[in-house]
Amino acid sequence: MPAKGALLAETADVVVAGGGVIGTAIAWRAAAAGFDVMLVDPDQDDAASLVAAGMLAPASEALFGEGALLRLNLLAVSRFASFAAELEEEAGRQVGLRREGTLAVAYDPGDYAALLRLTAFRRSVGLDAEEADSRACRKLEPFLAPDVHGGVLFAGDWSVDNRRYLTALREAARLAKVRLVPDSVLAVRAGDGRTRGVRLAGGGDVDSAHVVVAAGCWSGAVGGLPDPLRTVVRPVKGQLLRLRHPDGLPPVLSHTIRSIVRGTDVYLVPRSDGELVVGATSEERGPDRTVTAGAVHDLLHDAMSVLPVTSELILAETCAGLRPGTPDNGPVVGRCGPDGLLLATGHYRNGILMSPVTADAALALLSGQLPASEWEPFTPARFTGQDRPR
Amino acid sequence: MPAKGALLAETADVVVAGGGVIGTAIAWRAAAAGFDVMLVDPDQDDAASLVAAGMLAPASEALFGEGALLRLNLLAVSRFASFAAELEEEAGRQVGLRREGTLAVAYDPGDYAALLRLTAFRRSVGLDAEEADSRACRKLEPFLAPDVHGGVLFAGDWSVDNRRYLTALREAARLAKVRLVPDSVLAVRAGDGRTRGVRLAGGGDVDSAHVVVAAGCWSGAVGGLPDPLRTVVRPVKGQLLRLRHPDGLPPVLSHTIRSIVRGTDVYLVPRSDGELVVGATSEERGPDRTVTAGAVHDLLHDAMSVLPVTSELILAETCAGLRPGTPDNGPVVGRCGPDGLLLATGHYRNGILMSPVTADAALALLSGQLPASEWEPFTPARFTGQDRPR
Repeated sequence: MPAKGALLAETADVVVAGGGVIGTAIAWRAAAAGFDVMLVDPDQDDAASLVAAGMLAPASEALFGEGALLRLNLLAVSRFASFAAELEEEAGRQVGLRREGTLAVAYDPGDYAALLRLTAFRRSVGLDAEEADSRACRKLEPFLAPDVHGGVLFAGDWSVDNRRYLTALREAARLAKVRLVPDSVLAVRAGDGRTRGVRLAGGGDVDSAHVVVAAGCWSGAVGGLPDPLRTVVRPVKGQLLRLRHPDGLPPVLSHTIRSIVRGTDVYLVPRSDGELVVGATSEERGPDRTVTAGAVHDLLHDAMSVLPVTSELILAETCAGLRPGTPDNGPVVGRCGPDGLLLATGHYRNGILMSPVTADAALALLSGQLPASEWEPFTPARFTGQDRPR
Repeated sequence: MPAKGALLAETADVVVAGGGVIGTAIAWRAAAAGFDVMLVDPDQDDAASLVAAGMLAPASEALFGEGALLRLNLLAVSRFASFAAELEEEAGRQVGLRREGTLAVAYDPGDYAALLRLTAFRRSVGLDAEEADSRACRKLEPFLAPDVHGGVLFAGDWSVDNRRYLTALREAARLAKVRLVPDSVLAVRAGDGRTRGVRLAGGGDVDSAHVVVAAGCWSGAVGGLPDPLRTVVRPVKGQLLRLRHPDGLPPVLSHTIRSIVRGTDVYLVPRSDGELVVGATSEERGPDRTVTAGAVHDLLHDAMSVLPVTSELILAETCAGLRPGTPDNGPVVGRCGPDGLLLATGHYRNGILMSPVTADAALALLSGQLPASEWEPFTPARFTGQDRPR
């Protein structure tokens, strides 16, 4: 019996720490499956999910030596459309999925040679890729600079409006009776080898048998994680721009463009509402979220190099977010520490894309089942050295 | 006697249409001189004064063939310090006047030749200008790019923080009992050859013997002006950037820098609070106030060419304003139309600098006196063909 005047502890089946796309997708799916879910986030405007571009691009992002990550990304993209359809249905909102594909273009012969080497690798692992010479590129996208050297069309690489997507997830979570608490999880509480709940930064405890830490680059700050996991996730700063078409200008792009401009990557992601997202830097600067003059200049410069008409668009917003990066660029999803504790973070550049399959994996684990085999290389155990059953 | 239920007309000695630096300075000085003043402005956040950089630069801006304008600008700068001191005293606020001077620099030999031709002209009209080679420029401003070809120091060209200055003017006007009305002046009312007051866009009349139209590029839209004056002022779009130093970075500039980068002008104006203003485009695009990707790119590019460390600064704000331009680049200040009507607009690039002397001129005219002789070439009569006494 609590002492007189003490607060009664709140309870939940599952507490999710972190209200970006990963945490919110998990909260929604868990609540839809019948769990009583509390979602704890101190500032919903702070998620890296809001800064993202929303590329769903396993093929045009696949790199040498990241085969396991590629397999997971392919699973993620194959799941995305059905997940998005169910989400749109549940939330009663569109998420802006675009299926035109991604055109990777190279600015000079050196860039083109690099693109072709990557394309050969991507084809060797079964990805669909169609080479397009300069003329063919301009037939697909008439506003491309004439001096674009050539490109490759990845028809299976789509995009989603990350902000509409997160808004829909939040609405679906709300409708599924997820309780949103505007606070931070200070620590996971445990006893007898089992998770007992969380302590909130604002004071007060929540009792729960399951806790999911999905706090992006801040995940390591949650107390109670096994030590090696406290430093696994680091912030990788990304700056990007949101442009808009001025009144009367027709859309200047239909495909997502990924471009290599003299060795530097830039992407341009069109939305059907007239927005064009240009990104992104990748900077190791700790938790700094300032927008810098140099980054904005370079993004605009590279965007205008491949798509000169960019100069006529309205610069509507500049922003910076912190991707949760990991030592091997792969996510960290699975059990760790006391029974009942799950980690779901480290999605780095692929948080939007992986949010459906991460929610699937988390729901499987909450229900005592195994996630898809593609997750095996991405458990927390690879950093703790533990050999726990999954 | 008004009909039953009719609104009693409001009255004032002077109605000023327009709440930028020109209108507010006039309102303040008139109220301080004992007039009962009403200041009418629909949106105080909309003034070009807020977008300006605040350069007080008669010397570094003087161009061939604009001798009369130069004489007026020199009068304006000689008046500025005493006006600002009185303003700071009255308003109890600092306006951020900086007296370090302006260093004009040239990026390449062609730019330098152009700068020296201008400098010879400026000296020929008595302006103070001190040549500085590349080394001397970098001694004055150590962060300048080493490839800056050379420069000229204009010690008499100062700067003011335009936003603090406007804020102080508004506070001084308020303390002097100027009544601020958030509305637009639809038309000047007249009868028997005399000004009778104004009609407000929101409905309602104000009776007054004096009306001052100081509505910047919108001045021509005020009804009741003589026809030729309705099209004299046009909007000239200017885009500029406000940068900020990140924590821990010492100030990168002390002088205002005006640079010619391969024929294009760019200026960098440092504030003592860590702001650095970079401007500005000059675009004939009608009343468009969008910020475009191309303009931001070009401003950043040129700023980084002369001051590479600019790339490390925070891009805090991008903005666009509409300067009131005229056919001869000179302001339009003086009587026009019915007795009691004054126009005070067309200050183009020099509104901040000229606001004190414009207020002096307006107060003289309101009091039946003659303004300074430097104003003679800048009366409305040069556009109406009238030969009215001033």
